[in-house]
Amino acid sequence: MISESCTARFDALPLDCGATLAPVEVAYETYGELNAARSNAILVLHAFSGDAHAAGISPETGKPGWWDNMIGPGKGFDTNRYFVLCSNVLGGCRGTTGPSSINPATGCPYAMSFPVITIGDMVRLQKMLIDSLGIRRLLAVAGGSMGGMQALQWAVDYPDAVAAAIPIASTVRHSAQQIAFNEVGRQAIMADPDWRGGNYYGGPPPARGLAVARMVGHITYMSDDSMREKFGRRLRGKENFGFDFDVDFEVESYLRYRGSQFVNRFDANSYLYITKAMDYFDLTAGRGSIAAALDPAQARFLVISFSSDWLYPSYQSQEMVRALRSRNHDVAYVELESNYGHDSFLVDVAEQSALVAGFLASTFEKLA
Amino acid sequence: MISESCTARFDALPLDCGATLAPVEVAYETYGELNAARSNAILVLHAFSGDAHAAGISPETGKPGWWDNMIGPGKGFDTNRYFVLCSNVLGGCRGTTGPSSINPATGCPYAMSFPVITIGDMVRLQKMLIDSLGIRRLLAVAGGSMGGMQALQWAVDYPDAVAAAIPIASTVRHSAQQIAFNEVGRQAIMADPDWRGGNYYGGPPPARGLAVARMVGHITYMSDDSMREKFGRRLRGKENFGFDFDVDFEVESYLRYRGSQFVNRFDANSYLYITKAMDYFDLTAGRGSIAAALDPAQARFLVISFSSDWLYPSYQSQEMVRALRSRNHDVAYVELESNYGHDSFLVDVAEQSALVAGFLASTFEKLA
Repeated sequence: MISESCTARFDALPLDCGATLAPVEVAYETYGELNAARSNAILVLHAFSGDAHAAGISPETGKPGWWDNMIGPGKGFDTNRYFVLCSNVLGGCRGTTGPSSINPATGCPYAMSFPVITIGDMVRLQKMLIDSLGIRRLLAVAGGSMGGMQALQWAVDYPDAVAAAIPIASTVRHSAQQIAFNEVGRQAIMADPDWRGGNYYGGPPPARGLAVARMVGHITYMSDDSMREKFGRRLRGKENFGFDFDVDFEVESYLRYRGSQFVNRFDANSYLYITKAMDYFDLTAGRGSIAAALDPAQARFLVISFSSDWLYPSYQSQEMVRALRSRNHDVAYVELESNYGHDSFLVDVAEQSALVAGFLASTFEKLA
Repeated sequence: MISESCTARFDALPLDCGATLAPVEVAYETYGELNAARSNAILVLHAFSGDAHAAGISPETGKPGWWDNMIGPGKGFDTNRYFVLCSNVLGGCRGTTGPSSINPATGCPYAMSFPVITIGDMVRLQKMLIDSLGIRRLLAVAGGSMGGMQALQWAVDYPDAVAAAIPIASTVRHSAQQIAFNEVGRQAIMADPDWRGGNYYGGPPPARGLAVARMVGHITYMSDDSMREKFGRRLRGKENFGFDFDVDFEVESYLRYRGSQFVNRFDANSYLYITKAMDYFDLTAGRGSIAAALDPAQARFLVISFSSDWLYPSYQSQEMVRALRSRNHDVAYVELESNYGHDSFLVDVAEQSALVAGFLASTFEKLA
């Protein structure tokens, strides 16, 4: 698989909040080859804590991309046929401009002077990237969770530029419960004295707060069932309760480990900004209904949800499907049976791969 | 309604961890009158953050008890007929000995030198209280959530002393997901520098950590549906997004408020100890199966769960019901339709009251 890792730079990006960010850098990777007609490009959109490294093995970290099981030769996103791109989102901390980037006006990291961004802003920047590569229309935009929100935003904001959209385990607007879980994470970070109003660069990061935020997140990504299967009530390295506050259970050990590991790869301020963008996400705002919100889209849709996903429950996918059908949009919907909760789109991909492969092939044929 | 507020004192309480706590105080309240035969006593058991003040208006705080809608003249627990008791649990911070109590050996608060306790320990202390009042057999033990765990433990540990048990929205053992949510709360508290290894008495408490822990808790007590109904995406005191990290949404405001309020009434170390007791709770440990675990019980059972409770889902109640039925125990089970999630047993009590009233009346008749 031919792949590239690049950074694009743009002079200015106007934002929904009214501010303009200048300049802006975008880290992205590509897999496969763009065909002569530039008609085989697929933009894959990452979820909250993802990055541009969607597939293959990173020469830096030696780690596979976050959707490596979906992207590659013969896989769901078949790099023998398609040119797949993935960029780190605006506000991120993995190569794209975000709160940890240097503000050229001050020579210091933006920190909390970084403007509050939206999913629309993320997509606007992606559109600049796609335009810069000379791609007039994407064969597909696809992603799970926050990636699905971006896919929906693409389909609505740039209808001419999107032939197909694949929102997975996603929603047209964040619910009160989804906002609530994000708010807990933000409060955990901001409660950490090391956060220091966001000005922790150069000193210790708010590691404890960020770890707690990540622990909450991890619980919401799994299902009750998958946690029972994976951990149950198994004790960690002991036969009996410790009767103290060290780790007793495997699940405690797992969460503590995941929390502490996250600190090494993610910026706490990016956590704040990206969760805020998700919470602000509401395609229906100012448009009245879901049907009205999605109506501008000209894309074909493949909508996927997972039976055990309680963070982005199937009803959220189903309400977008009903709305699309009500306006006679071309939409296919599948609720996949899986035990893995919200994480299913990342880990339980056999059926998802087949669905995506078939959908992409038929879209490509129609366009040809 | 005649009511009393008392404190009982016992010389020593042996604990499951092997230690002995000496002395031990228990704060309790009673409502109604004990009959001459001492056969109309009901022990009501509070959930995680509850206390002995279950009914009536507190002369101290002016606030109604946590189950005031269930306990009183003509209510589910009818104080015209029954003598209702409720005590603050061992490890608590509302009058019963806990980590914030003075250790007589040192003259300082126990803090983290308080022994790790179990649901069994809580119940052992309650049994001492009931014995001291000259009550040989309780007409019923009843409670929701952690109160239900205590009710089950009572029925198993003191079968002769319990005529009926009413575990509501509860479980025979904490699941991985339930442990995980508790662990997040504990980590949030212990991550707060003001926690200082538990030695914060006399200084500022770990208010930020405790508030974050409580915020997580509150989300788990509600349902996705009830949060949508109560908050939706409504903004708090503004027409448009603030594009900053102040409160935007009503749900954020609610959670921050509830978190900060909790700090005024709850001790962070009690949070650690009581959640640990819940996590250790597993009636089946060493007994092989749920049926074997519950088999010693001689009580009649009324088991109640709520359709929208995802923290203590109905399947957990159903597995105890199946186990009881398999050994021919007298058990009635109802899953009540309610939108309020785990909080239903506290707030949506119309049907629950009728069920409890009927069950208690028939139990009382059988005993007469």
